[in-house]
Amino acid sequence: MKVGIIGATGYTGQELARLLQNHPEIELAYLGSSSNSGAVYEEMFPQFSGLRSSQGMGSGLGTGKLDNEQVPDLDVLFCALPHGLTADRTAQWLNRGIKVIDLGADFRLKDATVYENWYKVKHPAKELIPGAVYGLPELYRDKIVGKALIANPGCYPTATLLALAPLLQKGLLQKDGLIIDAKSGVSGAGRGVTLGNHFSEVNENFKAYGVASHRHTPEIEQQLTEAAGSELLVNFTPHLVPMTRGILATIYAQVTPGVTEADLKVCWQEQYEGEEFVHILPEGIWPQTKFASGSNHSFLQLKVDSRTGRAILISSLDNLVKGASGQAIQNMNLICGLPENMGLKMRGLWP
Amino acid sequence: MKVGIIGATGYTGQELARLLQNHPEIELAYLGSSSNSGAVYEEMFPQFSGLRSSQGMGSGLGTGKLDNEQVPDLDVLFCALPHGLTADRTAQWLNRGIKVIDLGADFRLKDATVYENWYKVKHPAKELIPGAVYGLPELYRDKIVGKALIANPGCYPTATLLALAPLLQKGLLQKDGLIIDAKSGVSGAGRGVTLGNHFSEVNENFKAYGVASHRHTPEIEQQLTEAAGSELLVNFTPHLVPMTRGILATIYAQVTPGVTEADLKVCWQEQYEGEEFVHILPEGIWPQTKFASGSNHSFLQLKVDSRTGRAILISSLDNLVKGASGQAIQNMNLICGLPENMGLKMRGLWP
Amino acid sequence: MKVGIIGATGYTGQELARLLQNHPEIELAYLGSSSNSGAVYEEMFPQFSGLRSSQGMGSGLGTGKLDNEQVPDLDVLFCALPHGLTADRTAQWLNRGIKVIDLGADFRLKDATVYENWYKVKHPAKELIPGAVYGLPELYRDKIVGKALIANPGCYPTATLLALAPLLQKGLLQKDGLIIDAKSGVSGAGRGVTLGNHFSEVNENFKAYGVASHRHTPEIEQQLTEAAGSELLVNFTPHLVPMTRGILATIYAQVTPGVTEADLKVCWQEQYEGEEFVHILPEGIWPQTKFASGSNHSFLQLKVDSRTGRAILISSLDNLVKGASGQAIQNMNLICGLPENMGLKMRGLWP
Amino acid sequence: MKVGIIGATGYTGQELARLLQNHPEIELAYLGSSSNSGAVYEEMFPQFSGLRSSQGMGSGLGTGKLDNEQVPDLDVLFCALPHGLTADRTAQWLNRGIKVIDLGADFRLKDATVYENWYKVKHPAKELIPGAVYGLPELYRDKIVGKALIANPGCYPTATLLALAPLLQKGLLQKDGLIIDAKSGVSGAGRGVTLGNHFSEVNENFKAYGVASHRHTPEIEQQLTEAAGSELLVNFTPHLVPMTRGILATIYAQVTPGVTEADLKVCWQEQYEGEEFVHILPEGIWPQTKFASGSNHSFLQLKVDSRTGRAILISSLDNLVKGASGQAIQNMNLICGLPENMGLKMRGLWP
Repeated sequence: MKVGIIGATGYTGQELARLLQNHPEIELAYLGSSSNSGAVYEEMFPQFSGLRSSQGMGSGLGTGKLDNEQVPDLDVLFCALPHGLTADRTAQWLNRGIKVIDLGADFRLKDATVYENWYKVKHPAKELIPGAVYGLPELYRDKIVGKALIANPGCYPTATLLALAPLLQKGLLQKDGLIIDAKSGVSGAGRGVTLGNHFSEVNENFKAYGVASHRHTPEIEQQLTEAAGSELLVNFTPHLVPMTRGILATIYAQVTPGVTEADLKVCWQEQYEGEEFVHILPEGIWPQTKFASGSNHSFLQLKVDSRTGRAILISSLDNLVKGASGQAIQNMNLICGLPENMGLKMRGLWP
Repeated sequence: MKVGIIGATGYTGQELARLLQNHPEIELAYLGSSSNSGAVYEEMFPQFSGLRSSQGMGSGLGTGKLDNEQVPDLDVLFCALPHGLTADRTAQWLNRGIKVIDLGADFRLKDATVYENWYKVKHPAKELIPGAVYGLPELYRDKIVGKALIANPGCYPTATLLALAPLLQKGLLQKDGLIIDAKSGVSGAGRGVTLGNHFSEVNENFKAYGVASHRHTPEIEQQLTEAAGSELLVNFTPHLVPMTRGILATIYAQVTPGVTEADLKVCWQEQYEGEEFVHILPEGIWPQTKFASGSNHSFLQLKVDSRTGRAILISSLDNLVKGASGQAIQNMNLICGLPENMGLKMRGLWP
Repeated sequence: MKVGIIGATGYTGQELARLLQNHPEIELAYLGSSSNSGAVYEEMFPQFSGLRSSQGMGSGLGTGKLDNEQVPDLDVLFCALPHGLTADRTAQWLNRGIKVIDLGADFRLKDATVYENWYKVKHPAKELIPGAVYGLPELYRDKIVGKALIANPGCYPTATLLALAPLLQKGLLQKDGLIIDAKSGVSGAGRGVTLGNHFSEVNENFKAYGVASHRHTPEIEQQLTEAAGSELLVNFTPHLVPMTRGILATIYAQVTPGVTEADLKVCWQEQYEGEEFVHILPEGIWPQTKFASGSNHSFLQLKVDSRTGRAILISSLDNLVKGASGQAIQNMNLICGLPENMGLKMRGLWP
Repeated sequence: MKVGIIGATGYTGQELARLLQNHPEIELAYLGSSSNSGAVYEEMFPQFSGLRSSQGMGSGLGTGKLDNEQVPDLDVLFCALPHGLTADRTAQWLNRGIKVIDLGADFRLKDATVYENWYKVKHPAKELIPGAVYGLPELYRDKIVGKALIANPGCYPTATLLALAPLLQKGLLQKDGLIIDAKSGVSGAGRGVTLGNHFSEVNENFKAYGVASHRHTPEIEQQLTEAAGSELLVNFTPHLVPMTRGILATIYAQVTPGVTEADLKVCWQEQYEGEEFVHILPEGIWPQTKFASGSNHSFLQLKVDSRTGRAILISSLDNLVKGASGQAIQNMNLICGLPENMGLKMRGLWP
């Protein structure tokens, strides 16, 4: 099976390449980059040294060079670029029979007006929205199978929805007053250099950003509204942690009267029974971002504070894997009829 | 003026020594340690190299050796040990005319029963509680002046109370549903070695701890209840950030109907007008922990999310300075009639 | 093929478990720990969540519990404990037909007197030394194949020998004046808690340790002496870097008169032609520890300073993988007749 | 005394401002920046919040705004810009009676040809070189007093020269084969954003850079040649440590026959007797960069390896203080007749 990456030099692009190298059923046939066309991939990224000359499925890197954005015939194309850059070409690729997994934001929001309000640009391909499916397999697996255009979820929404969606769907939490206080490693901001991501400015420092204005807010609200059955709003505050990888979301929700901590856990257990990548931790063990480092696994824990009647739910994952490239490969496996965990079995790097 | 530190080898003890070296009106006449008595302080802690032989006020280190816990005659004694270790000797020191500033928790809670419930030990000196004052100068300056026993606030409570207390006192926020999601550097856990503070376990990692059970919860609730005028409860969740110093608290509160973002800011401005150590940041600039690094300064910002009607308040400071040793010196200055900022003028270390 | 780990809770033990989970031809049939016997492995180490119930080769974790040190029948046993703790039982295991790969130091030094001088203990199993082979495959592959007792090299020696051994063997460098200035992440010090590895003491800090006294010195000298053909001494200085994983060695050597930079590179290219795990970087690209993070790959570069006639050689790898557990699995593959790279194909985690 | 900073927004500029705020005898009367003229300094750098309205010497920030590069009348001007940007205006400032302390490289090398070879630009003000003095007070105090143009040393040279210069001057070390393996925090690279200083690329990573080509090499060689009395060359290799502040140099030198470890230490003790900022650590305690964090102090230790006859010398300091802005203020104090330690008494921030 031939797959390609457009935007292969960014962090999600490099992470796709790393994970796909270990996938036994694919050939990484195309690495596209508008700005680095012609460069030798393993010279730019020495962690891939020696792959140019490798043979066989799951190990080759095509010519070993970055191509321009003329996409060849492929089975699957991963779009690993920021929003707005590939949506207008997506219809062509789909028409050529290429399945598209978009790691950007263009096909996540069902309402183009909401997209335009939060992203401050005209939607580049509105007509494709109805055919796109929101690719969070543990929640929407049945809708994903058989689709050709996947909107790969954002990193913060993935962490948040895994914790909240099943509980809201069962009516165990109240819809009002949901608070999501989330924390991410710096790689979430990508490979583009800015003063805000300069080592000396971020290291030994902690801050909030995008307060009451982060673009993952409407994505979270859309999916939680669907789960709850009626419209809801959330407060979502992201923070920057002086580390490279990892997301942890601390979520506060008022419990529905009569619902117990045990009820909430049973709901999670039923939802995630048999899931390979979502783990409800044993009593007293709380998620840490490092449990997931470099892996597609995610971790959940909760507690109801009997004093205030509020549930505290914590969810962690690796923003570049389950929060981006790993989930994208999980989606590829699903839409291509491969075992869902293929190429994704590695466990977190500890320490 | 002769001052001493009991518990001089811990992190708040070392920080007191560092700051007191720069204080022009004191002689650091006593460094006590139960376990390291006899050790040469500057050999244990080479950042103080050369101080043994220094002369004069504000620069000497007494004999240069750590003493046992037989406290000599002093004007002020800082107790920089965990709760329960010095309270039973405090009455003696006070009787000898030594003013005591306790950086531990023993005299912070006015109700010994609450103390005993949360700290799981019998209170060691209940009878002193009424005479102790909660030493957060920007909120309780008038009560501090003239006192001999200061309960120096906890780091998380300091960050939280600076943001919330004035707003609750003025009735601008609702008392129900207060959520304090706080994040601290690892130095807050002290110098004691544990697997949980082992570099390889904490570095590149982020986690919550003490969920719905941290001992700073009743301290925050006591002071906010006093501010609000009637009892309230909070959800307080601390997290560990892979950095050494700094605390940032992200606080969520429902605004009282009719109150605007501007009203909240005006309240803060009135409260902190002329304060040297509390800064309300300009519009759009959010607190970062590093603004305060190594300094006694603290930073505030807020926003009302018009979609949800909830205020997000963020407060940052250095947990070892304004959150502990710096505030203790500020209290010393106040109770000894010295300018409140003496020895505390240094600004944050950036980068 | 059944394999086991004794010392499964340390960092090299956990890393063996992580890598072996991804190895298609082995069953991880035994996890031994003297201190944690009976504990559920995935509860101690949540990165392995869900493995207890997994089925099949390469995925199971036996009973999922840590056993005591009664080793069952196995094909291969990895000893992942510090020196001195398993050597006295090694003969029994070999007699039972179990191949032993020792990640400790007991069988690395050929001369028990040298061992006793540097390690300050009596050698626990001198009689096994002649039968042990030093397991650095890229240099000693022919000697490793067919052996039952492997002395897995130290992390610093692996980085150093890959750079120096071929060049000394060919006589391209002078034996006098070799200087190895090495830097390691903190995980090299293991999982034991000490003040020296406490987060707040190590973070944002850099220091040398073991100056002119580190135990890897005689190991390096033994192998370089063998390469050079006559005795030599080195200056070896390790340093602690505030990061978790990675080793980088900066090596200074006087070039043999008449030898050029190109000669040195040709020697490396001939030695490492076709090697999957050793990469000579392109001109101008210098090794970084992160190129190797979590992988069994290593990186080399050199330059001859024409002003001083001295070569500067730099070598990097992940101390827990190529410097310990990954190399141990590479050795297992070799002595068990499996493809040498089996289970070790993953590339470095970047960023 | 009125002082100013040109290049006030860079890291050495901010550090000068931080330290000068604490200096009792100066008024910080001018903050110049070509690119940020008109900006409010405390809004760009909130660690200085509230200083605009402060009164009095040592606390004010002039207008509180960044000025353009039209320098007003001052007693001392600090030039905190990279090489080549202020040298051509230096003569004017000197002619106006302003003493100039240049933190850049333009006046450090006595031979303009050497400068031009290493810096690849024409020297902008050759005629001023003879009048400039190399400002490392502990080695050249007598030459500094009374001068108007100070070439403030580089960070790596300061660490290196403190260790080596006195020993070479006394003939205790051989001039051949000097190796300086140095490691720096990322702040040494300045505030300019590049991929090489991007958090996710540097964090959890360690690398060498400028191998056999770093511009501090000729500066070190010039001063060591002067100390030794005849020309010498060194191998100097800088490395980047994933931390913000700190430099540590590990130096290897062959001891002159007959010279002992004790001889070397006596030489250091004689040189640094009574120095406030240079500390020879007690036997067995090795320099750590964090001992110096935020302070003007530096630390030395050495050992002679009796096996190889080579001395290992280690030197540490804070690259932004003793390695730049602190030393600049120490020079200002010297040339203005103030106590040399004025404004520089603070000790290292630990932890």
